[in-house]
Amino acid sequence: MRTAAAILAIALAASPLAAQSVDRNEVNRILDEGFNRSEAMLTLQHLTDHIGPRLTNSPGMRAAEEWTLSKFRSWGLKNAHKEGFDFGRGWWIERSSARMVSPRPITLTAIPIAWTPATAGRISAPVIVAPMTEERHFERYRGKLAGKIVMVTLPNDGSEPTDPAFKRWTGDELAKFDTYEQPKYDPEASDRRMKRLDYAAKLDAFLKAEGAAAYATMSPRDGKLVHGAGYLFGAGETQQVPGVEIAAEDYRRLARLAKQGNAPVVELENVVHFVDTDTQAYNIFADIPGSDPSGAYVMAGAHLDSWAAGDGAVDNAAGVAMVMEAARILQAMGVKPKRTIRFALWAGEEQGLLGSMDYVEKHVASRQRKPGAPNTGLARFYGWANRWPIARQPGYDKLVAYFNLDNGSGKIRGINTENNGAVVPTFRDWFAPFNSLGASTVAIRKSGGTDHVFFSAVGIPAFQFIQDPLDYGSRLHHTSIDTFDHIKPADVRQASAILASFLLNAANADKPLPRLPFPTEPNVTDPFAYPNPDDLD
Amino acid sequence: MRTAAAILAIALAASPLAAQSVDRNEVNRILDEGFNRSEAMLTLQHLTDHIGPRLTNSPGMRAAEEWTLSKFRSWGLKNAHKEGFDFGRGWWIERSSARMVSPRPITLTAIPIAWTPATAGRISAPVIVAPMTEERHFERYRGKLAGKIVMVTLPNDGSEPTDPAFKRWTGDELAKFDTYEQPKYDPEASDRRMKRLDYAAKLDAFLKAEGAAAYATMSPRDGKLVHGAGYLFGAGETQQVPGVEIAAEDYRRLARLAKQGNAPVVELENVVHFVDTDTQAYNIFADIPGSDPSGAYVMAGAHLDSWAAGDGAVDNAAGVAMVMEAARILQAMGVKPKRTIRFALWAGEEQGLLGSMDYVEKHVASRQRKPGAPNTGLARFYGWANRWPIARQPGYDKLVAYFNLDNGSGKIRGINTENNGAVVPTFRDWFAPFNSLGASTVAIRKSGGTDHVFFSAVGIPAFQFIQDPLDYGSRLHHTSIDTFDHIKPADVRQASAILASFLLNAANADKPLPRLPFPTEPNVTDPFAYPNPDDLD
Repeated sequence: MRTAAAILAIALAASPLAAQSVDRNEVNRILDEGFNRSEAMLTLQHLTDHIGPRLTNSPGMRAAEEWTLSKFRSWGLKNAHKEGFDFGRGWWIERSSARMVSPRPITLTAIPIAWTPATAGRISAPVIVAPMTEERHFERYRGKLAGKIVMVTLPNDGSEPTDPAFKRWTGDELAKFDTYEQPKYDPEASDRRMKRLDYAAKLDAFLKAEGAAAYATMSPRDGKLVHGAGYLFGAGETQQVPGVEIAAEDYRRLARLAKQGNAPVVELENVVHFVDTDTQAYNIFADIPGSDPSGAYVMAGAHLDSWAAGDGAVDNAAGVAMVMEAARILQAMGVKPKRTIRFALWAGEEQGLLGSMDYVEKHVASRQRKPGAPNTGLARFYGWANRWPIARQPGYDKLVAYFNLDNGSGKIRGINTENNGAVVPTFRDWFAPFNSLGASTVAIRKSGGTDHVFFSAVGIPAFQFIQDPLDYGSRLHHTSIDTFDHIKPADVRQASAILASFLLNAANADKPLPRLPFPTEPNVTDPFAYPNPDDLD
Repeated sequence: MRTAAAILAIALAASPLAAQSVDRNEVNRILDEGFNRSEAMLTLQHLTDHIGPRLTNSPGMRAAEEWTLSKFRSWGLKNAHKEGFDFGRGWWIERSSARMVSPRPITLTAIPIAWTPATAGRISAPVIVAPMTEERHFERYRGKLAGKIVMVTLPNDGSEPTDPAFKRWTGDELAKFDTYEQPKYDPEASDRRMKRLDYAAKLDAFLKAEGAAAYATMSPRDGKLVHGAGYLFGAGETQQVPGVEIAAEDYRRLARLAKQGNAPVVELENVVHFVDTDTQAYNIFADIPGSDPSGAYVMAGAHLDSWAAGDGAVDNAAGVAMVMEAARILQAMGVKPKRTIRFALWAGEEQGLLGSMDYVEKHVASRQRKPGAPNTGLARFYGWANRWPIARQPGYDKLVAYFNLDNGSGKIRGINTENNGAVVPTFRDWFAPFNSLGASTVAIRKSGGTDHVFFSAVGIPAFQFIQDPLDYGSRLHHTSIDTFDHIKPADVRQASAILASFLLNAANADKPLPRLPFPTEPNVTDPFAYPNPDDLD
């Protein structure tokens, strides 16, 4: 009489999935720990309500670095440490206010633009609407800006949302994600982007030379939401003119009044502070060590940094809480994986995936740098993707899979395989126990914009999960209402459990996940395209 | 040989609509004036951007009273005048700010509650969450509130909008509006409401006695929208404790932090002012005189007052602009109507339809007052509807129709006939030239909540138009983003033209519009209902 285990072993050996076979019993233990003893929402709440915004190198981010490290240690993870990289200045908002004081009093909704200097106390100045997006527009306003608050965005007509703010993917939408797109390659794209990047510094120099009191941009979202994104965070790059983003409704009212006669007078006070005690930003790591002597590891990551307008809840305390909860679940289960499971919390994501890029450069693979090309700030991000060849670092082959979470707080509906067709059957199998929790889509498409990108770009099997959007894109992403309230606890717990399961499967799989061929420079530019005249300026 | 005119006359005489026959040529002239030379958006913009919020008896409302009168006069309307009624205090916000200063600094989104007193400068105090909705809840917090900012709303879990913020009615939705509902009558409803009304004053007295520094409510809408509605506007009613409405996200964060340990400290500064030079509120009127010696007239109205959070754009500068534009169109056409056409802009609508109620009482019909019953503030509104009998004023029979606009800035899709079945064919005929502009629904249902209510309640044919909702209810109604930006100019022009046409038709109709029977006290209470235990407290 054969035992049940023996029957199972034979069945698995006969299965085409045998190479990635996993212990299904672990799934039930993960769900038990993740649903009945979850700490994910406590983690998320501490990061948002208590610590608040975590702009890279700000005091909030420093507090988050220390707290997450201590949390990993308290759960018993090993090798918890931070690793620094050159970033730039810290900056934080103590308080700010903006009011129209003439022709009538209105309290405006506004936020200081990140890394712009404080106002000299409470300043009061007339506005001037001077829409500028390129250097050639400066001439039109020369001699007109002295002592003014310069409104540099062209006001638009606003927009009214005809789609629901809150949504979950339908089956049809998920199915469409599973579409292979043949690659396009534009080797000059990053140079063009870098040229645009210069513009912010040039505008600042122009405004300074003209004696502008401050400048104002219009929020790109309606509904009194503000963001305050700014990118001149490098030491020595700091703008000289204070900047403020004004809510669209308030900005457009100022613009209409200015057009009709006496310019409104705005009273502005940005009480902001720079911190230069440490210009390094830090990634946070912690491990569940594996038994495999080769040093092979799998990794999950999410960025710990945020913008300053809200509390960085869905972007991305949610992803951080899921990664940390997966760590807690696996640690509480006492798993002894074959490969090490590493948990990474990135810094500088919002300024160009800089934390994950630094990790890739140091530990995975580096790319040749163009002589003389800029390598600070956002330029580092834009300049990176089209440098060839790629050189493997010693740790290249040890990293067998990277999983990223940065699509808000929605539950996991599937995963993007980044053109990796070979991994599709494996991931379908791994999702099988979670199909009834809404997760089943394995979509071959590539996704961009977050910390798996540079891993994937050097040939690591690196994946971003597909999550329900909820109201991430519609109203929370980078805004003043990215707060804990908008999180759905059941979604966070589901995603944490699935991530834990994927990590354990990847760590224990008989063979490493299939890789794409090692990347070399493509030859797929469009030989028939004319350059865009906007790029010739 | 018969002339074309004679043929037409015979045709009309044979038609069932003959009694209400109208000159169709006027429609084309109205559309020409209303679409090619519209001033509606200029009117609307002046009321919102330039004048801004128009809380009854505030300086903004006073400016609007003068400006609208001067505008009517400049267009050549006759009998432009204002008519006062007892209201209460003026109140306006110079500026306000709210910040959490501990455990970390956050600028909060908040607004002073209307007619609450200023803070004594910039105050700083810990919060306490003390949800109270009834007098019996006070005991729980006695002795705990001294020196605190008392958060009186029970925080909720928030809500995520799964319907689009912006919408237009579908044909199906419009069709459902045409449903006759048999009347219900609850003679004690207003007494119950009045009892609840006492609560705000009792809470204030309790907070004052306990030495609370201020009180805070939670915004009823998510998304950092605030409203600031308050109702203790009568002279002698003013609250003693400053009040502030805090954005839901900010309120809930304070509540969570307070629950977890040290109460957050909030710094609050409400710089608000009372104006007591004139406690009368004023309705605004202007006429296009009719030739009929009986003094018969038709009237259109919209309320000029608003809340203080936004600029009162969709509620209700839009309706005012439509009424004023209809006046301008008809005046520019040089119409000489049979009956006088009167344009009314009401005050005190937001505090209980008080302006239109005053007009009805003085010029249309009055209701018996219960001896000793309160007759100020909101109590006047709640107390009015169930007083019997109704006594006709001398002007009762002269008012042959009242048309109201107070559903935002959306185009007119139809009209509610308020259970008046006899008028249905007439209105269908009047809409016929505008069917291709989206207006065709004649819905027999009753609608409530705005200035046609008290006309209708005394038997006047009084109607509220059906308008596309746009984002009125979802995010603009009474909020901080009720600004000019969210207005759709094409909708405003369409509604103005249709109103002009309805007014001219009603003024020139051979016979007055059919009326409902003169109202007497109904006898349709439910003899089987038990009282709600909540009403017995």
